[in-house]
Amino acid sequence: MTDVAPALGIDVGGTKVAGVALDPAEPTRQLAAARADTPRGSAAIVDAIATVVGELDAQLAAAGQAPARTVGIGAPGLVDLDGVLRLGPNLPGVVELDLAGQLAGRVRQAVHVDNDANCAAWAEARLGAAVGVDQVVLVTLGTGIGGAVITGGRLLRGAHGYAGEPGHMLIDPAGPPCPCGRRGCWERFASGSGLGRLARQAAEAGRADRVVELAGGSADDVRGEHVTRAALDGDTDALVVFEEFGWWVAIGIANLVNLLDPELVVIAGGLAEAGRLVLEPVRTAFHHLVLGPVDRSGVRIELARLGPDAGAVGAALLGHERA
Amino acid sequence: MTDVAPALGIDVGGTKVAGVALDPAEPTRQLAAARADTPRGSAAIVDAIATVVGELDAQLAAAGQAPARTVGIGAPGLVDLDGVLRLGPNLPGVVELDLAGQLAGRVRQAVHVDNDANCAAWAEARLGAAVGVDQVVLVTLGTGIGGAVITGGRLLRGAHGYAGEPGHMLIDPAGPPCPCGRRGCWERFASGSGLGRLARQAAEAGRADRVVELAGGSADDVRGEHVTRAALDGDTDALVVFEEFGWWVAIGIANLVNLLDPELVVIAGGLAEAGRLVLEPVRTAFHHLVLGPVDRSGVRIELARLGPDAGAVGAALLGHERA
Repeated sequence: MTDVAPALGIDVGGTKVAGVALDPAEPTRQLAAARADTPRGSAAIVDAIATVVGELDAQLAAAGQAPARTVGIGAPGLVDLDGVLRLGPNLPGVVELDLAGQLAGRVRQAVHVDNDANCAAWAEARLGAAVGVDQVVLVTLGTGIGGAVITGGRLLRGAHGYAGEPGHMLIDPAGPPCPCGRRGCWERFASGSGLGRLARQAAEAGRADRVVELAGGSADDVRGEHVTRAALDGDTDALVVFEEFGWWVAIGIANLVNLLDPELVVIAGGLAEAGRLVLEPVRTAFHHLVLGPVDRSGVRIELARLGPDAGAVGAALLGHERA
Repeated sequence: MTDVAPALGIDVGGTKVAGVALDPAEPTRQLAAARADTPRGSAAIVDAIATVVGELDAQLAAAGQAPARTVGIGAPGLVDLDGVLRLGPNLPGVVELDLAGQLAGRVRQAVHVDNDANCAAWAEARLGAAVGVDQVVLVTLGTGIGGAVITGGRLLRGAHGYAGEPGHMLIDPAGPPCPCGRRGCWERFASGSGLGRLARQAAEAGRADRVVELAGGSADDVRGEHVTRAALDGDTDALVVFEEFGWWVAIGIANLVNLLDPELVVIAGGLAEAGRLVLEPVRTAFHHLVLGPVDRSGVRIELARLGPDAGAVGAALLGHERA
């Protein structure tokens, strides 16, 4: 017996609020999709989520589908066990936002709020790279870094719901300052912004001509996407930047593996789209950086499979399962 | 109904093999204790453990106690789920030692082998600083650093049994070389050896006169114990070293809390004997280093309560519970 009511999932990102409706019995099938720009400030974000939910409801009705009964929300930052976003540094103007409480009065579905990387990990566990794997670490490498831990087939939540935040793991006391107020956080090195910074350093040293060209001629304008494009074209300088980048990514992954001993590490987020450009240098460096590489020869590092929808899909699945 | 048979526990350390016998129904009561120096090499270590077990058996018999039915062993390093010590860098000459298998033929008790910090954490969870706490991280700061994670009231084991190894978390790519082959591992900074190194640096800079005096007059001979002694006497230079040391300890603890979101962090191992000298600087620095300190205001950092016997006591408890 399956629940025939569709499940909604919303991924609240730094730039977009992206929503999907799916059939929990056949979750690879999207029944509806809608998105909005992420506005500034708590009230506006709640409005935007409610609008996207309304749009999904309308699409389902127009298609003759049953109304959705649950909505899962993935939010970036520290989300507590009551669905309050306690700390969301990537959502400007947002402090202590009770998403679960505020949305409960705005939408007709049962609301579940979770960390966005938890949602992405759950999607990969149910439908993607981590199907059937009990011990998983997922890292989302995008503008920043998010993370999630699955142990014994369940999301590790910790005492408050904050478990799995590797982005601000300090890995270099002499490293660059981080918006969080500390310096040398992993996120400064192993995110999209970290890739851009490494490329600008190479450009300033005259070791990234093609990358600078793609950025329009100025080393200051180099961003991660320019390195990726040059590397995909086979540019040697860009490939060297990716090797260095892979080493920084692998430091954090090795630290996570030492602590959590997973079978599988999944790399998700925007950087995962660079595919083997990221994966190969990370795998190589990982073996030099983890404790007991021989004893961990079975540990796999793989790319996420579900792409940018993973957060919304996982939110829908978690919202449905939690209801 | 309680099991009246005593439980044996053995802690295999870098210098001593320490054993206890306790009554599982009243585990704070030690029925017997024995120890031996840790010899070099796998076969000799198995012999030493068997000898300590035999000595405990003899003491129990002499006291008219029932014979023990279980023996738990705590070993330093990566212990897999079958009780094989896969990697034990602090036991010279030991590689791939099947402790569980080899001891099974040598002692009459049912054998359970676990990581030594897991054993210490279990003892603290059952009888010490972590009683009744479901989400705990324990770090043992001694010559090196060990660790254990309790989540949902259970030890986190991971895919192979290796979970909870924070000592070789890389926290400074420019840091000093580590015997593990990498550089900048947390253990280089936040262990007893790390404290000694910080003190020698202070001594070389002329900022640790009393500490050098206690070490016999040469900065090269300064070790952690000299700093501790000077600091306990109120020596300002030594207290400054402890402040710096606390900052390095707190980096790793903050990284662990970001990942695992415990309610309680327990500091165990030799350094815990320095008490508030360690605890206060760590607590202060932790709030500057963790993500979302306000949201984690309930997270406690405490000293272990069980002292140097914790490993053997926890091994006995785990061996008994696993039987």
